Amino acid sequence: MAEILLRRLAELATLSDSPDGLTRLFLSPAHKRAVALVAGWMQEAGMDTHLDAIGNLVGRKGNGKTLLLGSHIDTVRDAGWYDGNFGVLAAIAAVQAAGELPYAVEIIAFGDEEGVRFPQTLSGSRAVAGRFDPAALAGLDADGVSMGAALSAFGCNPDGVAAVARNPAEVLGYVELHIEQGPVLEAEDLAVGVVTAINGASRFAVVVTGDAGHAGTVPMAMRRDALAAAAEMILAVEAVGRSAPELVATVGALAVHPGAPNSVPGVVKFSIDVRAPVDAARHEAVLAITNAFDRIAGSRNVDLSLTQTHDAPAVSCSGRLREFLSAAVTANGIVPRFLPSGAGHDAMAVADLCPVAMLFVRCKRGISHTPEESITPEDAQVAVDVLVEFLRKFRNDD
Amino acid sequence: MAEILLRRLAELATLSDSPDGLTRLFLSPAHKRAVALVAGWMQEAGMDTHLDAIGNLVGRKGNGKTLLLGSHIDTVRDAGWYDGNFGVLAAIAAVQAAGELPYAVEIIAFGDEEGVRFPQTLSGSRAVAGRFDPAALAGLDADGVSMGAALSAFGCNPDGVAAVARNPAEVLGYVELHIEQGPVLEAEDLAVGVVTAINGASRFAVVVTGDAGHAGTVPMAMRRDALAAAAEMILAVEAVGRSAPELVATVGALAVHPGAPNSVPGVVKFSIDVRAPVDAARHEAVLAITNAFDRIAGSRNVDLSLTQTHDAPAVSCSGRLREFLSAAVTANGIVPRFLPSGAGHDAMAVADLCPVAMLFVRCKRGISHTPEESITPEDAQVAVDVLVEFLRKFRNDD
Repeated sequence: MAEILLRRLAELATLSDSPDGLTRLFLSPAHKRAVALVAGWMQEAGMDTHLDAIGNLVGRKGNGKTLLLGSHIDTVRDAGWYDGNFGVLAAIAAVQAAGELPYAVEIIAFGDEEGVRFPQTLSGSRAVAGRFDPAALAGLDADGVSMGAALSAFGCNPDGVAAVARNPAEVLGYVELHIEQGPVLEAEDLAVGVVTAINGASRFAVVVTGDAGHAGTVPMAMRRDALAAAAEMILAVEAVGRSAPELVATVGALAVHPGAPNSVPGVVKFSIDVRAPVDAARHEAVLAITNAFDRIAGSRNVDLSLTQTHDAPAVSCSGRLREFLSAAVTANGIVPRFLPSGAGHDAMAVADLCPVAMLFVRCKRGISHTPEESITPEDAQVAVDVLVEFLRKFRNDD
Repeated sequence: MAEILLRRLAELATLSDSPDGLTRLFLSPAHKRAVALVAGWMQEAGMDTHLDAIGNLVGRKGNGKTLLLGSHIDTVRDAGWYDGNFGVLAAIAAVQAAGELPYAVEIIAFGDEEGVRFPQTLSGSRAVAGRFDPAALAGLDADGVSMGAALSAFGCNPDGVAAVARNPAEVLGYVELHIEQGPVLEAEDLAVGVVTAINGASRFAVVVTGDAGHAGTVPMAMRRDALAAAAEMILAVEAVGRSAPELVATVGALAVHPGAPNSVPGVVKFSIDVRAPVDAARHEAVLAITNAFDRIAGSRNVDLSLTQTHDAPAVSCSGRLREFLSAAVTANGIVPRFLPSGAGHDAMAVADLCPVAMLFVRCKRGISHTPEESITPEDAQVAVDVLVEFLRKFRNDD
């Protein structure tokens, strides 16, 4: 089964908007061809398929209250083969293998998780959750095409997006398989892991302003070196990140002005990214960072500006779905490893509709969003086996 | 007198290769006009003038052993009015005011101190010192014109550059006035200061290599964050710079890869610049920095590459000339402030020929190489008065 799954992933990866590598943007020609290809596989698995008003491909089997499975089939530019796509094709393989189930199942191949083409992100899963803001239809891509116009050209009716929203009473939950995009499972020699929460995230843009000067002529005691101040701040961010388990804090981007070897830096701009599975821990970390920054800026007499650019709450995975998932992991002879998701996923948006859960699959060196993304056939098989086990054991106790 | 001097500086500043601001590159049309204008002022001061084979304008008065004065009349792009030009025009004003002297005086308006146009720098002063490498004549500017061809077009004979070298036995010394390009004199409310040495300088290009990763998914304990390592190194450079008086150590340029807010930095490249008036102190500082870097790279398990890109020894100013200069400062009612020069100057090259000395003039906020360069008429007057006093008291005791 893993062989077929990996062959399908390779075939799907040939559908690209670029001649080299894999780039499949929301509502692009490659997306259109991917919808057709994946719909065929859904139908082979006994599902009825349709394209909804926001460009999601939906496969359905059974009647009544519905368990949702899925992930996305759009990609970043120069992407790997597995991010998103694995979750959709693994769900198809599992539904096909699971046979008849005492509840309805839908697999949704979301069309826009990455948010590369339009200003909006998670368009498909937000619409399913009834949280899609129609104003986003006016958002333009780099060529000046609106999302609304692109949907129409794709064969969708943008006026019908509101109707994509599901009735929470009819939905049992949402389960998403995804590559880990991190190194934890590989380091612990585990094929899969059960996600506890999708981390909340805070991002800030920081500007430190001191005095530029000649690196040869300004005595050390007279300097207001913006980069030396930023260096202290970077270490403070790291120390806060290390201060609690499952917390991460990162300075990833940094620019120095004037940025010449013989100039004392006058202005440094950098980013902060803080994530945690528990919002209180994240807020505490942000407070510790801003307190440290105020102290450093004060002691070095530099000016500090800190602007929040992003604030997303953590999304907890459903305890009940997690129990079914971890039982299925155990049934496959693996000790369940519980870990948070540091990256965002469709499950984050679907959580506004229903209980969600995620199963992570080990990926090589923890890397994603590059052509080097890689998983093994053995791990793919384990992931599908776990999902089959889950589907067979899952009961709607309502 | 300061009024005339500042008016001349303003007039000279109109001779630019660019329509806006002041850019006067070596052997350019603006340089040619500057030579003619300055030669006229030298002649007014009773000097005979000639253009030498390397494009220096030389004014001479008197016979026999010669005291050299001067600075440069080329500029950086979008320059201030005073860097270099002040030293030349202040020397002309002082020679005119000093009257008859018991030794010969030459003022040299060096043509290439900044090294903006050709790969070579300090061409004029190196030639005077007999240290000009003829291979530099083949060096090309951005338009593919060689220095040799540019000299010919300027009316100079590149084959005669070797003959520009002076006979050390005929030279008494070299004195250069220059704006400080630093904030020390302003901070201490002094119009002028006596330079002790032109700092030696070491520069390094550093590459720190860790592991790039997803800022959300790589746990803190599994990171090899190149920027966090670099931050520790930046603080080590600063701490070493602060560890001894008159030592400066700077990280001025830094670049992060991949450099995205949601990426753990994998590679950081940065510069180190270390300067000191005493070479032993500089070498000790470099050793302390490299030791700290090795320790940091080891403890963080990142790879470190350190390449020396520049190594220039310090040049001490002549004790005897300094004594004459400081006596002249005292005679003008100012307590002599001795300070090193963090920037390079023509005096650095002329030191290979004869004893050198420099007088620094306070400049606003210590800034240079920008149109905001500024000095006051009062300070200009003090500088000229000190040089006049120096010229009158200076004796050749040989």
